[in-house]
Amino acid sequence: MEYYSSHISKLIEELSRLPGIGAKTAGRLAFHIINMPEEQVQSIANAMVEAKKNVRYCKECFTLTDNELCPICKGKGRNHKMIMVVENTRDLAAYEKTGKYNGVYHVLHGAISPMLGISPNDIKLKELIERLKGEVEEIIIATNSSVEGETTAMYISKLVKPLGVKVTRIASGVPVGGDLEYIDEMTLYRALEGRTEL
Amino acid sequence: MEYYSSHISKLIEELSRLPGIGAKTAGRLAFHIINMPEEQVQSIANAMVEAKKNVRYCKECFTLTDNELCPICKGKGRNHKMIMVVENTRDLAAYEKTGKYNGVYHVLHGAISPMLGISPNDIKLKELIERLKGEVEEIIIATNSSVEGETTAMYISKLVKPLGVKVTRIASGVPVGGDLEYIDEMTLYRALEGRTEL
Repeated sequence: MEYYSSHISKLIEELSRLPGIGAKTAGRLAFHIINMPEEQVQSIANAMVEAKKNVRYCKECFTLTDNELCPICKGKGRNHKMIMVVENTRDLAAYEKTGKYNGVYHVLHGAISPMLGISPNDIKLKELIERLKGEVEEIIIATNSSVEGETTAMYISKLVKPLGVKVTRIASGVPVGGDLEYIDEMTLYRALEGRTEL
Repeated sequence: MEYYSSHISKLIEELSRLPGIGAKTAGRLAFHIINMPEEQVQSIANAMVEAKKNVRYCKECFTLTDNELCPICKGKGRNHKMIMVVENTRDLAAYEKTGKYNGVYHVLHGAISPMLGISPNDIKLKELIERLKGEVEEIIIATNSSVEGETTAMYISKLVKPLGVKVTRIASGVPVGGDLEYIDEMTLYRALEGRTEL
């Protein structure tokens, strides 16, 4: 791309490394950045570097946070006897947004995937078992409803049940507002299996 | 978004300012950035700041470039008597990629749009007229085929023709590989009007 300034080419190349950003989008972003006020560009650049440098794992639940303990683990009002296991911090945030969960979390940072070569040792599973030494009453497994998520759920369940801790799995079924006609067979089957009495 | 680290929230907020990047995409990008090696993050951040600081307009054609003159205007092999007028540097790059154009360019940095309040004075039009004082034989107007692009083309044509310079407009018609069945009426009409003898 010699018709661009070498600085622009470099910026486009760097931006294309981000997920979901192809050459075209990177070009659009690069030209937008060039036209932004300098302090705004500096501000985005700083936010990236600062986030990378300062964000760390909560030593309790392993979510990404600023301090030793995340606000949820530090929170007095939370039920520390109930742990929801999620794949990543975004999933934690998704459940926090519901405002309906009062327990704490455990962030695995991945899911078991033989395909991608991710073994139980590659995710924060040992750390979860370690936490069960405390007074834990229930583990709610909220990994994704994908092959990897289900595999991980099964694995954890087999690991944790013998320790005498109650293990539950979030329900799988028809999403609220969903139209049965457009829902895949597997989901419909799961919704049937998981039916509850009215 | 208090469930995220303040650094992550800040990064998500900054990234959401970029065009086409909503809160969800910004979140995905932010978490990807946190998981990237630090030197890569530094590298993207630097590329942004460096591009913003060092890119400037070519003093001849006003494309974005590193030096006083862009490689095209400096180029010995180019026909400086033929100027293609484009809306922005990306459009210039698009024509350069064809490898079929040997003239030079003039980048307007926008198109006339009464709707958006962009007047002829807001784009590099005066600078184009200034260039016509040299030995220019033809102006090829390659603004977009949008309302703004067409308005700009008409405006330039009326401005330049009295100066005795040949003014042409790139052809509008069926794209190569296009299927007539799926092409809008306006394009089909233009293709008919612009028909050439075989």
